[in-house]
Amino acid sequence: MLSDTIRVVLVHTTHAGNIGGVARAMKNMGLTRLTLVKPQGHPSPEAQWRAASALDVLAHAQVVDTVEAAITDAQFVVGASARERRIPWPVQDARHCGKRIVSHANAGEQVAILFGREDRGLLNEELQLCNLHCHIPSHESYPSLNLAMAVQIVAYEVRMALLGDSLPVEQDANWDTPFAKNVDMLRFYDHLEQTLIDIEFLDPEAPRQLMRRLRRLFNRVRLDEMELNILRGVLSEMQKRLTEKLRK
Amino acid sequence: MLSDTIRVVLVHTTHAGNIGGVARAMKNMGLTRLTLVKPQGHPSPEAQWRAASALDVLAHAQVVDTVEAAITDAQFVVGASARERRIPWPVQDARHCGKRIVSHANAGEQVAILFGREDRGLLNEELQLCNLHCHIPSHESYPSLNLAMAVQIVAYEVRMALLGDSLPVEQDANWDTPFAKNVDMLRFYDHLEQTLIDIEFLDPEAPRQLMRRLRRLFNRVRLDEMELNILRGVLSEMQKRLTEKLRK
Repeated sequence: MLSDTIRVVLVHTTHAGNIGGVARAMKNMGLTRLTLVKPQGHPSPEAQWRAASALDVLAHAQVVDTVEAAITDAQFVVGASARERRIPWPVQDARHCGKRIVSHANAGEQVAILFGREDRGLLNEELQLCNLHCHIPSHESYPSLNLAMAVQIVAYEVRMALLGDSLPVEQDANWDTPFAKNVDMLRFYDHLEQTLIDIEFLDPEAPRQLMRRLRRLFNRVRLDEMELNILRGVLSEMQKRLTEKLRK
Repeated sequence: MLSDTIRVVLVHTTHAGNIGGVARAMKNMGLTRLTLVKPQGHPSPEAQWRAASALDVLAHAQVVDTVEAAITDAQFVVGASARERRIPWPVQDARHCGKRIVSHANAGEQVAILFGREDRGLLNEELQLCNLHCHIPSHESYPSLNLAMAVQIVAYEVRMALLGDSLPVEQDANWDTPFAKNVDMLRFYDHLEQTLIDIEFLDPEAPRQLMRRLRRLFNRVRLDEMELNILRGVLSEMQKRLTEKLRK
């Protein structure tokens, strides 16, 4: 069931009423799983009013403290992104994101779609948790959509894809190993960063864009669990060799 | 100009705030011409608040008494329709309607898109003024969209059609660095393999599938030149540390 597999995550929503608008937009398109990261003023009567007949989605919304907690078990993470980024990230328009999302959900993967604050969207560090950024091609005269409207369009594209417009994702067809969960990716990045410091490739006083570029690389490819184990093994072995040599 | 050619017509809107939401949804998608048939409570502060930076669309909205007056000069009229009708009418989903609308507009025709009351939609006699009915394929568990949401989706489909429904290439659009050449990838794989042997992670006598899996990984992602340089730098640094420690 898609409703178990695809979740919408609202990050630091400031206008509580929008949460109700999102709940309705989701249910209109057959999505029911909503996660709220530190929402302001939730629950609220205005959200209930705007949810209309989607009160069930609102009532079952999960509330968590961090984005990481919202996507711990997610294997494919899409982030709604309006702005141009200094480091480009893989980005597709809402239509293609809808197709990708349905392909991954159909493959049994946990999918999360992140939407940011009303005024500032997702922060860079949140966008860096994503495998793919989703862009709604709005008009340059006024590109900023209301939060619930943005959810409506992406949810609509998910539904359209589900109704038979989905693209098979090439690399995932008959893949031999499950794709890594977000929480394991975060552990890998910590391990990678520490190893790069140990071998003095990364200066923690002047990190520049190094980790950001490496995160982009590995989020772009989506590591499977065996690949993740191989890379963790390489890092552990590097650290072990350094310690051994030091001891001698 | 599409903004002169395509108008959105709201028929007997009862919640004045929705008019503001519609204005914003339109401008977000590049539409600016709004006609209101006997709107209740217009103008209103709530509409202004919801219009946000689309106050110009709201301010220039034309107010008329009848649907006929709103579409006098229209040459192609589309009506948003949720319900099954007793007499079947030509009906297409929002995606196809968006394409039809743009085709007619490109041919220089005046196009009107009608949206009905929040509670009952367009009446049969209003739907019979239309050339085409537009259906948003919402989920059967809760098919009724908020008025501004419905306008958002149709306006979005108009914009997508206008943009030519083009396929953006995922990660290559506006990428900041050229992608690595194959010859450099081969050098990288040699360097990687040697380093894995140096740190005793890879046993050349029993290599198993290790390099094959790593090649698959890095070929899947397509490294750009800067990423390749970073990874080569990590490998070199690792080798350097090993040699240093050995010498001591």
